[in-house]
This record gives sequence, C-alpha cells and structure tokens, in this order.
Amino acid sequence: MNRSDQQAYDRGTSLYSPDGRIYQVEYAREAVKRGAPSLGIRASDGVVLAAQSRAGSDLMVAESIEKLHKIDDHVGAASAGHVADARKLVDFAREHAQVNRLRYGEPVGIEALTKEITDHIQENTQTGGTRPYGASLLLGGVDETGARLFATDPSGTPQEWRAVAIGGGRDGIQEVLEERYDETAGVNDAVSLAVRALKTEVEDIEAEGMSLAAVTEEGYDPYTTEEISDLLDGVDVDE
Amino acid sequence: MNRSDQQAYDRGTSLYSPDGRIYQVEYAREAVKRGAPSLGIRASDGVVLAAQSRAGSDLMVAESIEKLHKIDDHVGAASAGHVADARKLVDFAREHAQVNRLRYGEPVGIEALTKEITDHIQENTQTGGTRPYGASLLLGGVDETGARLFATDPSGTPQEWRAVAIGGGRDGIQEVLEERYDETAGVNDAVSLAVRALKTEVEDIEAEGMSLAAVTEEGYDPYTTEEISDLLDGVDVDE
Amino acid sequence: MNRSDQQAYDRGTSLYSPDGRIYQVEYAREAVKRGAPSLGIRASDGVVLAAQSRAGSDLMVAESIEKLHKIDDHVGAASAGHVADARKLVDFAREHAQVNRLRYGEPVGIEALTKEITDHIQENTQTGGTRPYGASLLLGGVDETGARLFATDPSGTPQEWRAVAIGGGRDGIQEVLEERYDETAGVNDAVSLAVRALKTEVEDIEAEGMSLAAVTEEGYDPYTTEEISDLLDGVDVDE
Amino acid sequence: MNRSDQQAYDRGTSLYSPDGRIYQVEYAREAVKRGAPSLGIRASDGVVLAAQSRAGSDLMVAESIEKLHKIDDHVGAASAGHVADARKLVDFAREHAQVNRLRYGEPVGIEALTKEITDHIQENTQTGGTRPYGASLLLGGVDETGARLFATDPSGTPQEWRAVAIGGGRDGIQEVLEERYDETAGVNDAVSLAVRALKTEVEDIEAEGMSLAAVTEEGYDPYTTEEISDLLDGVDVDE
Amino acid sequence: MNRSDQQAYDRGTSLYSPDGRIYQVEYAREAVKRGAPSLGIRASDGVVLAAQSRAGSDLMVAESIEKLHKIDDHVGAASAGHVADARKLVDFAREHAQVNRLRYGEPVGIEALTKEITDHIQENTQTGGTRPYGASLLLGGVDETGARLFATDPSGTPQEWRAVAIGGGRDGIQEVLEERYDETAGVNDAVSLAVRALKTEVEDIEAEGMSLAAVTEEGYDPYTTEEISDLLDGVDVDE
Amino acid sequence: MNRSDQQAYDRGTSLYSPDGRIYQVEYAREAVKRGAPSLGIRASDGVVLAAQSRAGSDLMVAESIEKLHKIDDHVGAASAGHVADARKLVDFAREHAQVNRLRYGEPVGIEALTKEITDHIQENTQTGGTRPYGASLLLGGVDETGARLFATDPSGTPQEWRAVAIGGGRDGIQEVLEERYDETAGVNDAVSLAVRALKTEVEDIEAEGMSLAAVTEEGYDPYTTEEISDLLDGVDVDE
Amino acid sequence: MNRSDQQAYDRGTSLYSPDGRIYQVEYAREAVKRGAPSLGIRASDGVVLAAQSRAGSDLMVAESIEKLHKIDDHVGAASAGHVADARKLVDFAREHAQVNRLRYGEPVGIEALTKEITDHIQENTQTGGTRPYGASLLLGGVDETGARLFATDPSGTPQEWRAVAIGGGRDGIQEVLEERYDETAGVNDAVSLAVRALKTEVEDIEAEGMSLAAVTEEGYDPYTTEEISDLLDGVDVDE
Repeated sequence: MNRSDQQAYDRGTSLYSPDGRIYQVEYAREAVKRGAPSLGIRASDGVVLAAQSRAGSDLMVAESIEKLHKIDDHVGAASAGHVADARKLVDFAREHAQVNRLRYGEPVGIEALTKEITDHIQENTQTGGTRPYGASLLLGGVDETGARLFATDPSGTPQEWRAVAIGGGRDGIQEVLEERYDETAGVNDAVSLAVRALKTEVEDIEAEGMSLAAVTEEGYDPYTTEEISDLLDGVDVDE
Repeated sequence: MNRSDQQAYDRGTSLYSPDGRIYQVEYAREAVKRGAPSLGIRASDGVVLAAQSRAGSDLMVAESIEKLHKIDDHVGAASAGHVADARKLVDFAREHAQVNRLRYGEPVGIEALTKEITDHIQENTQTGGTRPYGASLLLGGVDETGARLFATDPSGTPQEWRAVAIGGGRDGIQEVLEERYDETAGVNDAVSLAVRALKTEVEDIEAEGMSLAAVTEEGYDPYTTEEISDLLDGVDVDE
Repeated sequence: MNRSDQQAYDRGTSLYSPDGRIYQVEYAREAVKRGAPSLGIRASDGVVLAAQSRAGSDLMVAESIEKLHKIDDHVGAASAGHVADARKLVDFAREHAQVNRLRYGEPVGIEALTKEITDHIQENTQTGGTRPYGASLLLGGVDETGARLFATDPSGTPQEWRAVAIGGGRDGIQEVLEERYDETAGVNDAVSLAVRALKTEVEDIEAEGMSLAAVTEEGYDPYTTEEISDLLDGVDVDE
Repeated sequence: MNRSDQQAYDRGTSLYSPDGRIYQVEYAREAVKRGAPSLGIRASDGVVLAAQSRAGSDLMVAESIEKLHKIDDHVGAASAGHVADARKLVDFAREHAQVNRLRYGEPVGIEALTKEITDHIQENTQTGGTRPYGASLLLGGVDETGARLFATDPSGTPQEWRAVAIGGGRDGIQEVLEERYDETAGVNDAVSLAVRALKTEVEDIEAEGMSLAAVTEEGYDPYTTEEISDLLDGVDVDE
Repeated sequence: MNRSDQQAYDRGTSLYSPDGRIYQVEYAREAVKRGAPSLGIRASDGVVLAAQSRAGSDLMVAESIEKLHKIDDHVGAASAGHVADARKLVDFAREHAQVNRLRYGEPVGIEALTKEITDHIQENTQTGGTRPYGASLLLGGVDETGARLFATDPSGTPQEWRAVAIGGGRDGIQEVLEERYDETAGVNDAVSLAVRALKTEVEDIEAEGMSLAAVTEEGYDPYTTEEISDLLDGVDVDE
Repeated sequence: MNRSDQQAYDRGTSLYSPDGRIYQVEYAREAVKRGAPSLGIRASDGVVLAAQSRAGSDLMVAESIEKLHKIDDHVGAASAGHVADARKLVDFAREHAQVNRLRYGEPVGIEALTKEITDHIQENTQTGGTRPYGASLLLGGVDETGARLFATDPSGTPQEWRAVAIGGGRDGIQEVLEERYDETAGVNDAVSLAVRALKTEVEDIEAEGMSLAAVTEEGYDPYTTEEISDLLDGVDVDE
Repeated sequence: MNRSDQQAYDRGTSLYSPDGRIYQVEYAREAVKRGAPSLGIRASDGVVLAAQSRAGSDLMVAESIEKLHKIDDHVGAASAGHVADARKLVDFAREHAQVNRLRYGEPVGIEALTKEITDHIQENTQTGGTRPYGASLLLGGVDETGARLFATDPSGTPQEWRAVAIGGGRDGIQEVLEERYDETAGVNDAVSLAVRALKTEVEDIEAEGMSLAAVTEEGYDPYTTEEISDLLDGVDVDE
C-alpha cells in the first residue's frame, strides 16, 4: 500500500485498512520503541526486572524517571514507551492488585492481573474518542503457580515470556537473552544476564540511569545504585 | 468500483457503499485472515478444536498465545484474528455461560451462546464510535442436542458447521477437511484429521505452536504438547 | 446528478441530496438485493414463506443459515439481505410478540407487529451515529383478521402483499408470482407456487438450500428437506 | 450561488448558507414532492381528505399504502413524502390527541394539535445528529371552533388552509382547487371537488390507488373503493 | 478576505474567523431579512406592533401566518425571519411570562423577559450541535416602568427602541419611522404611523396580509381585517 | 507560517499550532477589538469605569446598549466585544457575587470574583463543543483591600491594572492613560481622565453614547447623560 | 517526515503519527516555551522558586501576573506557559492539598501531589474533546522526606530535579544552573543562584517583573520587590 493510501486509514482507532490493519495501534507500537529499553528474566526462584532511563541532565534526579514499579509485595512491573501512559497503566495495576487483596484476602495471580490490564488496553483500541496506550509493561513476580513473567502491548495482547526486552534497542537485547538464557538459573544469575544484556546494547551505560529489581518469595527487592555499579563493573561483555 | 470511489465509503461502520457493502466489516474479515489458523471438527461423540500459533521467539511461552479457550465444562472456543479482540469475545462468552448456569441452573445451549455472541458482534457493526471485531470464534461442544460446532464472523453472522477452518491459510485447510471429513467418525479420528489438516498446510509445524482440545460428554479436554507431538509424528500427509 | 455530485450527499443517514433522496437508505436497499431471495404467498387459509440460502460449503449445516423464523405460534418471518441485521430484526419481532402476549393475554396482530418493526427501522434512518438496517423481512401468518402478509424495507415502510419476493433475483420471482397467483387457492397450492417460483429463478436449486414453512390456524409448520425435495421434483417449470 | 458554493453549505441542519438558507430543510421539501399527492378541502360542515398512492404491483394490497389516517374521532390526516417519516408524525399526532383526552377529558383542538406537531418538526431542523422530516401532513377535522384544515411542512411551519394539495403534482391540483373552491359548499360537494382535482391531474387514476375520507361532526368516515369508483365515474374533468 | 478564505470559517457556530467574526450568526441575520417585515412603535401610552405576511395563495387562511403574538396580557411580540424558529422563541417567551406570574404573582417586566430570551438565543450561538435562531422578535408592552419596546437578534443581543423595523425591506420602513416618529404621540397616532410605514414600503399591500395590535394598560388588542382595511384607506403615502 | 498552514490549525479550541498557539483564542481577541472601547481607572478612593457605545440609530434607546453593569453594591463591570457574550459573563459575575453574600454573609473580593470568571472563560478554551468568549470585562470596585481594577481576556487570564482600556481603539486610549495617570488622584480626577481619554480617541463623541460610573465606598454610582455632557464640554483634548 | 505528512497527524490528541509521536502534546510543549521562564532550586534546607513575568505596560500591576503560587504551607509552585492553563493546574493542586489535609490530617507529600497533577494532565492527552495543558509547573517544598523539587510537562510526566528551569529561554538558564549548582548549599545561596541565573539570561531584568520565594520548614516565604531589587544589585553576572 503506498503512502497516500495508508494515510486514508491510519487516523482513528475505529478504522481498519483494506488489508485488515489498525494503523493507530501499530503507530502506538512505534511510541513504545521510542523510549529506553526494559527487560524481564524469569529465573527458577523469581523474576528479574531491569530498565534503562535516559536522564537529560545531571540535575535531574535519575530515580525519578521510574521505570520499575512495585505493584504488590509479590509482583513488579517494568515499562517502556510514553512515560505518562505507562504510569497510568501502573496505577491501574496497583489498584487492581489492592482490590483483589481486599475482596479475596489473597495476592492477585500474575496472569489474571496481566489480563485485567490488557482488557483495559484493548478497550482503548476499539472505542472512539481516545487513543491506544503508547506504552508496554512487563509484569513479573511469584505467585502460587511459581515465577511468572508477562508482557503487554498496545493492542492489548498478553504474552508470557521466559525472558523478554521491550522499548528502544529491544532487538539487540533480546538477541543476548536468546543466546544466554538458562531456564534453570537462579535470580543471581538472571541479574547478571540482565546487566550484561543492557551493557551490551546501551552505549555509555551508567549505574545512575539503570534500575534493577528482583521479585522472589521474599518480595520485591530493588537494587541500589551502588549495587548496580558493582554489577556493571563485574560484567565483561566481550566474554 | 475503482479505488478512489471505494475509499469514499470504506471509513465508518455506519456507511454503505452504493452497491450495499459495509467495507469496514469486510476489512475486519481481512484482519481475521492475518492471524494463524484455527479449526473445528464435529465428531459423532464430541467436537475437536485445534489452533496454530506463531510464536515469535523461543523465549515466549508458547501456551500463552492461547487460541483455545474453555468456555464452560461442555463448550470450548478456538479463535483467529486480532488476539485482543478474540480475548474480549471469549470473556463475553464465559460470562454469558456462567450467568446462564446461575439463572437457569443448567449449561447454556451452544447455539444460544453463539447467537448471544453474534448479537454483540453485530452491534459493533451498526453503532458509531467503535469498530467491528477483527476476530472470529469457533464454538464447539456437547449439549442436550448433541455435538455442535458454530462459527462467528465479524459481521455477526452465526453459522453451524460439520468441520470448518478460520484464519490465515483457511482455504487449504478447509479443502483437506472437505476431502476427508466423515460425519460418523468419533473424536479420536477427528483429532487425527485436525492434525493432518494443520500439518498439510502449516509449514514447519511444531507441537509447541499447536493447541488441541476435545469437548465430549466427559468435558473439555486439552492435549499436552507431548500428546500433540506424538500425533504429529503419527500423520503422514502424503498418505 | 453525476457521480461526484452524488458522493457529496451519500454519506450519512442524516443527509438529503438536493433532489430529496437519502442515499444511505437507497444503498441499504442494495444490501438487501445482494442476499439470496425469500418470498411469501397469502393463501385463503394461511401464508406460505420460502427462502433460498447460499451455502458456501457442503460442510456447512445448511439449516443454520436460517432465513425462515418462527416469531410466534401464529406468525413467521422470512428475511433477505445482511444476515446479522435480519437476525436483529427477528429478535426484535419475537420480543415484541412475547411482550404483547404477556401484557394483553393475546397474540399480537400481524399488522401491528409489522408497524412496530418498521418504526424501529425508521429510527435508524433518521438518527445519527448508526446506519439503516441492510435487511428486509416478510411477516406472514394468521390473526383474527385472517391470513396476512407484510413486507418491511430499509426505509421503514410497511406494505401489505398478496404475494411478494425480496432479495437477489427478486424481479424474476415476482414475475412468476404475478402470472400465477390465485387469491382463492389454499396453502397447498401456495406451497407449489412458492417452489415453482424459486425453481424457475434459482439456478441448480437444491432442497438443502431451501427453506419452506406454512403458517395456518394450526400454527407455524416448517417443511423437512425431504418434503422440499419431493416438492421440487414435482414441479415442472416449463409447464 | 453556483453549484460548488452551494455544496459548501448544504450538508447539515445546523448550517446556514451565506444568504440565510438552510439547504437540508429545502431538500426535505423536495422529498415531499417525490411522493404521490394528497389534498384537503374545508367544507361548511367538515373537512374532506384525499390521497393518491402509487402501487408498484397488482399483488400489493393497495390500502396498505396508507396515506389517510384517523388521528382521533374528530380529526384525520393526509400525508405526502417519505412514507416512514409520515408514519412517525402520524404516531406522534395520535399519541398527543390521546394524551389530551386523558389529561383534559376533551378532544384536542386541531390548531393546537398542529402546532404540537410542527414544534416537534422544528426541533429536527435545529438540533444536530438528525435530519428534518421528509414528509408533510394535512390535519383536518371539526372541533369547537368549527371545521379546520392545517398543513405542516419540513421546516415546522403550520399554515391554515381552505383547500390545499401537497406532494407530487401539487401545483396542478392546487390550480383546480383555486378555480373551483366554494367556501359555502358542504362535504358532499367538497368530495366531488377532491375527486375532480385528483382525476384532472393524475394519469390513469384508479379507485384502488385512491383514498378518501370526510371528517364531520359525525366523526371520521373513510370511503370504500366502490364508493370512490362511483365518484370517479361521476366526474367529467372536461366539464 | 476572499471567498474561499471565508468558507474556511463559516461552517460552525463554535468558530471564529481570523478577524473575530462568527459567520453562522451573520448568516442567521440574513435569514431574518428573507422574511416579510415587522415593526414596533412606542407611544406615550402603549406600544403598537405591526407585521406584513406573504400569503402564497388565496386559499391560505392569512391569519394563520401569525406574525403578531400575545405573550401575556401586558406584552405582545412581532416576529421576522424563519417562521418555525420564531414560533419556538414565542413559546419560550409565553412560558417564561407564565412562570413569572406563578412564581412572583405579578406580570414579568418586559426588559427582564427580553433578556431571558436573548440569553437563550446566545446559548445557541456558543454551544455546538445546534444552529443560531434564524428569527428576530420585537417585544412591546406596558409594565410598571411604562411603555417599553425591545428587539432581539440572532446573536442574542437585546436592544431597546422607540420605533424599529425588522425583516425584509427593513431599511425603507425604518427610514419612514425616523422621519415621522414623535415620542409624545399616543397609540392612535402610532397606529397611523405603522400603517403608513408599511404602506410606503410594501407593494400592493392588502389588509388581509397585515397584522396590527396595540398593547396598552387595557391589555393586548389586535385589530380586525376590517379595521386595518379602513386604516390603509385612510393613509396617503404621498402626503 | 503562511496562510494555508495557519488554516490547518485555526479551527478548534482543542488544537495547538506547531508553534504552540491556540488560534481560536487569538481570533476571539479580534472579536473584542471589533467592539467599541471601554476603560477603567483606579483612583485612590475608588474605581472609574467608562464605555462608549455605537448606537446605530436615533430611535434606539442608547442606554439599552449597556456596557457598564452593576455587579454588586461594591463592584461594577465594563465590557467590550461580542455583546451577547459579555452579557453572559456579567450574569455569571452577578450570580457569583450573590452566592458569595448568601454563603459567607459578606461582599465577594474583587480579585476572587475575577478569578472565578476567568476560570469559567478558560474552560471554554479547553473543552470541545464550544467557542471561547468573544468579550473582555473590566471589574472594578472597592473591597476590604481597597480600590481594585481587573481585566479578563478570552484566554481566561486575569490581570490587575491601575488604568486600562479594552476594545476598539484601545491602543490610543491606553496611550492617554499612560501619559496622564496619577495613582494618587481621587475619583473626580479619574473621571476627568476617563472623559479626556475617550474624547481624544472617539470621533464625534456624544454624551448619549457614553456611559460612566464610579464605584467608591458609597457604592456603584452611574452618571446621567447630562452629567456626562457637562464633563465632555469641560475637557479640552488639546490642552 | 515532510510538512504535509506531519499535518496529517498533528490535529488531535487521540492520534499517533506513523513514528509514534503525539504532535498535539509536542505543540503544547511549544506553548510552554512561549512564556517567560521560571526556575526551581533544591537547597539543603528548602526549595527556592523564581519566575520572570513580561508586564506589557507600566499601568499593569506586575504582581497580578502571578507566576509563583503558594499551594500549601509547605509547598509552592512556579509556572510557565499558557497562563490560564497554569492557573487551572494550580487550583487543582491547591484543592488536592487541602483535601489531603482534611482526609488524613497531614500535609500532602510533594511527590504524591505531583503525581496527582500529572495523572490529570495525562488524561487530557488521551481523551478526545479536549486539548493538552499548555503549561508546566515546578512544585517545590519540604515534606517528611526533606526538600523536594518536581516538574510537570504537557505529556503528564513527573520528574524530580535538583535545579531546573522551564519556559522561554530555559536552555540558557539551565546552563547557569548546571555550572553553579551545589547540592550542599542552603536556601540563601540558592536564592543568589536563582537571581544570577535569571539576570544572566533575561535582558533588562527588573525587580518588578520578577517573583521569588523560598519554601523551608518555616513555610512559604515570598520576597518583596525591594528584597529582589537588592538581590539583583548584589549579583555580578560576569563574575
């Protein structure tokens, strides 16, 4: 389809192109790629989440560009794409997790939580008067089925992963994950793989711009900048 | 009708073209064809549902791309097309089946369930401010009238089938079904036919990307990857 | 009016063209003509409804393409055009008939029922945010005024007929009806005329694709495929 | 104003053209002219209403194309234009007449009834999301002020007439009325004038396609096809 | 601003042109000029209202084209422009006058009444989904502040006048008023001036097409056609 | 930005241009400049408001073109721009002042009142389906903080002034104010300055078309036409 | 992307461009740059806020162009961009702070307050029928976590800063801040840095157009024009 034909169908979430595509959803996927990358790795005993931020200035407090979010004691999220959209999805997730605890007296299942979020995302791709979310989330943690890791996308499709990267530079990071992922490894090894994957693909990476957290049976555990710094030093990407 | 004439009428579910077509519904049918295929086969003692998924990566958990869904003890669904749209229809179906049990104390009829879903789909083709569903469902199972298999399409038309395929590559699969379908065969033979039909048409088919389930008087019975692998090995498509 | 002038006025049910036409309603009439034909014949002692379906495959259960519908014990409907739209109108008719019984303890009059439906159809041609129904119904049966047969169209106009065809190929079928209709004939002769009219105009007609029902004081009586097959064999269209 | 300038302003009831016209209302007037004609004549002792229908087929039940409508015991209506729109206005009138009886225990005044209808019509010319009514009504009858005859138009303007024609061929019929109208004549003479006026202007007029009613102190009195036939025979238009 | 530039801004009451004009309001003023003229004159002891109608036919009951309206015992209105719009404003005025009597037990002030109406008119120039009123009203009568005469326009601006004409031919009539208006004259002289002004400007004026009313402390007093005829005869426009 | 580029962004209050402007708000500012001027001057002991009107005819009652408005005992308003819009803002101000008295038992602060109004104006620049107000207000008076004078604009920005002019010819009048304003002067001198400023800039100024009011601790005090006439005579603009 | 391609996607907050951008949000950022600059500096014992205004006239009361706002005893805000939009956000912040005190009996956390505001801003970038806010806020103060400084932007992203400038001329001011910021400095030194940064970048800076406030444990403390004047004199920008 040439350019002017495409333009006839790409302005409205309520519109299909003749070949059955919803362009606004595809463009929202581009918005996800414009951001810095995030990744998640499922280990045998938990899930590791990591994210890279692009601080525009030394005066900015790097942690304020939150890309990792504790959703509940047993589940965290990493985001990529339009920051404000991601924040709204994170709020949605936290609220749903809380309501689940109040109503059923137990932590929400991670798959159920993910599907609640993707249902909400899908609504924004079908109903007029709004735009799709320009952000993706990784949801990882430990529930009664074990360690689980899910990704959402702007169409509202949930997918379960062993290890996955989203956002800008996703392809290179995913390649590292595919080469080195080991399903039997524990959280510590998964942390090393996460750091290696980001270090391989992000130029001039610095601990200040990186976030890292592990979610295990012990709960949601974010790493300090010092710990991240040590981890970065300990990885030799050419190895 | 040439291209620029068609473009005058293809942007809005509330719009007919001069020859009486609703293009947005037809484009939604294209969205169904963009997905991987699913199929359903009515056997003498139940219905077999099968679906192929396209996992983009080894790290994705193939089962998470659910294309077969248990709706109730006695009925399952296979989907094709826009994944998030299909999920919404499946949620709609589950909720309706549950409400029926609560209200009437008995399982919902499969024909009645299908029509409830297609009524909902039709609404989205007539009312403004939304787009048609870009997904089709197969609904199969056993109710007091016996084994039944229905398909929905984006216009909201319900159709009953003995055996049917939907989604990408549908035509080739349907051809296999038409050649080999036997109304008197039982579920086991239907399973073989389902595997054969997919193996014939899907290149480099693997058990990991395939889902298979039988719905009989015993209930909804999904096959494991190992069982599917054995079935795939047991079929010689040139036979 | 030339093409580009017409295009200026044919996109919206809330829009008249300079010569006072509502094009979207006229295009919806084209949608009716795209479907397979249906017909109705008023006999002295009841009404006969018949319809032809286009089954796309031997594996489709032909009866599932319902084109004849029992509305109540004393009234049936035949439809043509957009199948999902027709189904919605049939649901509307059934609900209204039921409500009438509950409220007044008696069967709804066929004329009153028809007008309730056409009022609803008209709303969709005047209010924005929706499209006209792309389907027509024939409503036939016996009420306290005797045998009655009505047709609806996409503008919402009710018309009473002695014998009428709607849908694709309507003109040829109507011609047969006009030549051979006999107001004094009973239901059996009307059935023969219905079969003759469809056999004359539908190429390669088969019993499987045809529906036939009579509504008399005895109630709504659908014919089996075997009965239809016998009737088809019994008609010589060159006679 | 040339054509393309006019097109800039004629799509929307909420839009004036630079010379202060509302084109959609003017186009709705064209819709009225597309239908068959109706007329009304005020006699000394009542009002006569007459209408011509265009039956498309001998198999259509001519009376079903209702163009005369009893609104209440003392008032009737004749319509022209878009049939489904006219039916909706007639329903509106009947409901208002009934409510008036219930609320005040007396028949509604014909002028008051007319204005209630035209207020409703006007709303549709000012509020967005809808189109003007493509139909006109004549409302005639006898109330405590004597015999009264009113016409409505698509702009929502009520006008009182001694004798008036609306719909297709209106001009010729109105000419006959202007030549021969006699304010002192009784209902019988008015009936003759009505028949003459239609016979003069409608080619190949037949009793089956004509409706005729008189509203006097005795109530609403429709003529049978036989009576109309006799009346048609009794008129010599060249006289 | 040239034509095509103007067209960019003249379609929507919610839109300013670059020079700060709201074209749809200006076009509504043109709608007022398309109608027949009305005038009002404030005398020392009351207000005189007069209006000219354009009856299209002798068979139309001229009085039915109401252009003078009794609003309450102490206030009347004359209208110009789109007849159905004017009727709606008159209904609005009557209702407000009645509510005022019910709520406060006294007649509404004429200035307050006018402002209530113009507030309503203004709303229609600011809120989307509707069009401005294509009609102007003159409101005249006697309240506790004496004789008062106000005019409304399609923008919703109220203005008080000693004597004023609105509608088609307004300029010529206003000129006569400006030449001959005498603030100290009584109602009888004002009536003569009203008749003279209309006779001067309206070609082939006839009593049947003219309405005339005086509002004094005695109340609202319409003139009969005979009285108007005598008044017309008594005026020599060349004098 | 050239003309056709500008046109792409200037139709909708919900739209920014690429350089961050909201054209519909800027065009509404042009609407303010199309009206006659108003001014306000803060004196040591009160505020003076003055306005010029353009009466189109001697027969118009000049005072009816209200441009000065008493809002409450201690605060008045002068307006410029679209008259009907200004009236609506004045009604809003009066209602708010009254509610404040009822709720808190004390006169509303002038700054608080102004901000309430500008909040309302801002809403109309952000929410769709409406247009910005095409009018500005000056709000002046005496509250417990002393004499205060505020201006509103179509964007909804409140500004406090010592002396300010709005509307057509604003620049010349403002120049006079800047040359001659004396913060220590009392109301009488401020009145002289107001008259001088208008006389300097308005051609053929007449007392009838001018409004003048002082708001002091004594309350809102409008000047009579005679007083204004004397003041006009007493000013020598060349002095 | 060339100009006309960009124009296809930049009109609607519900619209992505093919490269995943939301142009209306980016244009709103331009609106922020059109205003005068504001800045915030986090000191060891509090936060300093400063802003420059552009008074158009000596007669305008410079303080009325409020750009610093006390939100609560412990938090202030500085704004840049569309003044009326900023005012609305400030009102939102104040209301939220007040509600927090009422509900929980304690001052709102500054981070929580900021996120409440950015959630509201984000809504305006996703829901149709409105435009994004054309203003940014700096929120600074002291809460139980110490001195905190946050910025909002038109996309609804919250960021924490040590020192930051927003609005017109932001880049130059930020450069000064980056060169000279010292995290260990107290409020007094931060005030000096604020004055220096503005004096360096704003031409012909005057105390009248500048606002300055410090928020410490003692509360919100605005500086007088005299104090600002002294501070301006005390800074040598070439030093």
